[in-house]
Order: sequence, then C-alpha cells, then structure tokens
Amino acid sequence: VGERRGKGDNMATLARSVLVTGSNRGIGLELVRQLAASPRPPQHIFATCRDASGLRGKVSAWGCLPARGARVRIWDLGSWPLLGVYTVDLPSIRGAMQTVETHLEGQGLNLLINNAGVGSQATLQSVDAQEMLATFAVNVVGPLQVAKVCEFLPLLEKAAKDAGTEGLSCSRAAIINVSSKVGSIGLCLGVLEAPMYPYRASKAAQNMVTRCLAEELRDKGILCAAIHPGWVKTDMGTEQAPMTVERSMQGILEVLGILSQETCGAFLDWEGNRLPW
Amino acid sequence: VGERRGKGDNMATLARSVLVTGSNRGIGLELVRQLAASPRPPQHIFATCRDASGLRGKVSAWGCLPARGARVRIWDLGSWPLLGVYTVDLPSIRGAMQTVETHLEGQGLNLLINNAGVGSQATLQSVDAQEMLATFAVNVVGPLQVAKVCEFLPLLEKAAKDAGTEGLSCSRAAIINVSSKVGSIGLCLGVLEAPMYPYRASKAAQNMVTRCLAEELRDKGILCAAIHPGWVKTDMGTEQAPMTVERSMQGILEVLGILSQETCGAFLDWEGNRLPW
Repeated sequence: VGERRGKGDNMATLARSVLVTGSNRGIGLELVRQLAASPRPPQHIFATCRDASGLRGKVSAWGCLPARGARVRIWDLGSWPLLGVYTVDLPSIRGAMQTVETHLEGQGLNLLINNAGVGSQATLQSVDAQEMLATFAVNVVGPLQVAKVCEFLPLLEKAAKDAGTEGLSCSRAAIINVSSKVGSIGLCLGVLEAPMYPYRASKAAQNMVTRCLAEELRDKGILCAAIHPGWVKTDMGTEQAPMTVERSMQGILEVLGILSQETCGAFLDWEGNRLPW
Repeated sequence: VGERRGKGDNMATLARSVLVTGSNRGIGLELVRQLAASPRPPQHIFATCRDASGLRGKVSAWGCLPARGARVRIWDLGSWPLLGVYTVDLPSIRGAMQTVETHLEGQGLNLLINNAGVGSQATLQSVDAQEMLATFAVNVVGPLQVAKVCEFLPLLEKAAKDAGTEGLSCSRAAIINVSSKVGSIGLCLGVLEAPMYPYRASKAAQNMVTRCLAEELRDKGILCAAIHPGWVKTDMGTEQAPMTVERSMQGILEVLGILSQETCGAFLDWEGNRLPW
C-alpha cells in the first residue's frame, strides 16, 4: 500500500493540464475520475465526449472533487455522421481547441489522451465495408484529426516550449493513444475465438499513426505513445473482462508518469510492458 | 543466368489458376505479363481492374502469349464510389467469382493476388478524413471483401481440398496481399521525408488483415502472406524509384514459389526477407 501511495503522490504531478476524449463512460470516465481525485490533481482537466450532459451528471455526483482543487471542464466534442456512426468533426475540434486555449490563459496543453473509440465484433463472415470504415473513422481518423497541425498541436508545442526542460514526459507535452493488445499484428491473439477484423485493423492502423507522430513530434518536445489498458469491465470490454476499470486506470496513470525519451513511440500495456507491433 | 532460368522453370508450376487484382498497370500488369510469359504458364490467369478495355489492348500487344498456352482473361471488377474514390463493390466481386468459377470448370482457384491499391502522400499538415478513409477503403476493405466467405473463399477452399497435398503453398491455395515496407510499424521508415499517413496506416491495417486471415485459413489449407514489392518505377512509385518493375516481379514470383507453412502469415520482401510488423 505504501508503494502504491508513493506512486500516487508522483501521479499528482503528472501534468498541469490534461484533455481526455471519450470520457463519458468506461476507461475515459475513470481516467477523469482518478485524475480529479488524485492528491494533487491537474489544474485543468478537459473532458470531451458526445453526451456532455450525461457526463456532467456523473461528475457532479463525485461532489467532493471541486473542493480538492480539481476543475473538470466538460463539453461535447461534436460529431460527424459518417456511414452510420459518429466521429469527431474538424469544426468541433477547432471549437474545443479554442475553449481549451481560453481556459489555459496563455499556457500550453500538456497531455492529450485520445481515448474515444469503438469496438467491433465482426467476423470474416459478417464483416462489411461500412463497419470497417466506421471503425477506422472513429479509432484512427479521430485521433489523427485531434493531433493535427491546425488543431491541438500548437497548444502541445506551446507546453513543450514553455516547460523549460529538455526530456520528453507527460508533464511536459504528450499525446497518448489508447490502443489494444488485439491490435498487435505480431501477437495476433485469439483470432479464431474473437476475429474482430474491423477493430484489430483499426488498432494496427492507429498504432502506425502513433509511431509516425512520435517520429515527427519528438524534436518538438512532444512524446507520443500507445497504451493497452488491458481487458477491462466496461461497455466495450463486457462483464466477462477479468479486470476492473479502476485497477487498469491506476496502472495507466503510473505508466504515464514514467514515460520518457526511451518509451517515446512505444506500445505499452497498463503495467508498462512493451508489446510487439 | 543458369540459376535464374532454373528458378524460372520452377515458377512455371507456381499455380494452375491465378487471379490478380489491379492489373491494368504497374505491378499488377507486370505480374500478369511474367505469369503469362513463363515457360509453363498457369492454365488460367484472371486479370481484374477498373479499365478492362485498356488492359485488353496492352495484353493484345504482347501478341505471342496465346500461342504459348497462356490464356489471360480480363474484366472489370467494378467499382463503388465512396468518398471520392472507387473501390470494389460486393456485387461486382460476386459477378467476378461466378465468371472465374465458370472458366475453372469445377476446379478451385489456387492463387489470389490482391494487388489493387492506392498511394497517398498526405502529411500531418495536409491529411484529412476523406483521404484517410478512401485509402483505407481501397487498400484494406477491398482485399478483405475479395477474400470473404461469400466471395472467393469457397473457390480457394476447393483448390485446397482438391490438391491432394497437406502442406501450404501457392500451387495449392493462397491469398497474397501486396503490402509495403512503409507499412511496417516497427521500421517506421522515413516518416520525416515521406509522411504518407493514410498510406502507412492503411498498409499496417492491411497487414493485420493478412495475419488474421492466415490464422483463420491455415487449417483450411490456404496460405496467406503479405509481400513488399520494393520501391519500383510505377505510376505510384514514380521514376525516382531505384528498381524496375520487371526485377521486382521476378523476385516476387520466386518468393511465391517457395512460400510454405513456415512463411504462412509472414511479411516478406521481394527477395524473401522477413520484415517486422
């Protein structure tokens, strides 16, 4: 417990400002909750999702949080109807960026966590073009759009410049993409039991985007990494999952706290183990 | 020369029937030409593309081929307007499958080469959702649709069953997806010089599909592999490329000839070297 608490204290300094997408439930919601409830929470927590009113209700129910200094700001990131699903659209990302910029009052954004995503159970028999494209739109195009040159990138660059340090870290400037072990081409886990073609293909593509962003943004002082949260009990993971979302997010926050140059561009699980691409 | 000719003789027995998508130019066209011109060509070469009349003209210009026993059958694989680009649609794949089935007269299809694909030079600055989705549609959804349960898979399964052998090979039954080294997440080559986000992401996703298909179809006697043709002088590769398409296709046909259980699900270059995912 002592060790855990010690790490918790470190976590408190994770980042001055954090934005989490897809934060209305599951992993995103628990990330926001643990960030807000940490001993010394980030000064700014920006929580975006497609159902801001629902999320506001959940955050209000935590009640005690504002008294501890955490300020969770919530809004819709907007949505773009594409092939039957909704993904973020550029105008709403730009609107969100301006809102974040206003709240930051001249400071940069330290940590962007692209958590929004959709699952897909499609098999070789059932998979169709629409499901492939819709899954790709949310899981790959979304995170790339958010990180683009005209969107949140300038705020991350500002944070990197103003940090006054050289090394890469989440407290300086980072983009974390929530990925999945089933997106590891090298492992190719359990295809016969759970084919999930659209989901696997989208996560492999998302990993490529993460790795490319890491190469491109390293020299600007921005760390990028892909994180596998484990198979957790969420709407996407189902009740069959072996791990609670609380345990997974504790692990992820510990891992985020120790990311550095050495793990820039890596694919890690919630315990910090490297996964093959 | 002697060794090359010896391998050429092996290549002649590569497969009794072969289907190549995207065969109107570049790599696909050269694959069809070398298959047709080999000492003992496949009995059936099916060449599909979006401009069958143009391809017919090119194949006619080869002239001597029919006399050597090669019969190149050509047709449009149809197209499906999606977000500004065209990819194969299910009805046209089904039509193609029925045409192939008729020509095969009760035999299976040995070798399906998914070569159709599009490039994309988009950078982090210029990339947009439409280009990401369009590239993914052609390079990932297309090959998966063609290989699906209701499409060409039954003809490949038939070839695998009728082969009277146990091992995996292109002469028995195989799906080869033409991939690219820039789709290797592990290598992540030259991102700063050539970001190509949509192309890289699509090829990583396609590699995942190849690997999943390999797992799923291995027990049915069908080999699946991803092949990197090298950087070749084609419309996509441009004149800057260091290698001729002739040399690349010679290499690929040699590699296809030696694929086996050991290389099922692998990512290989035109010289047979394994590439990291």
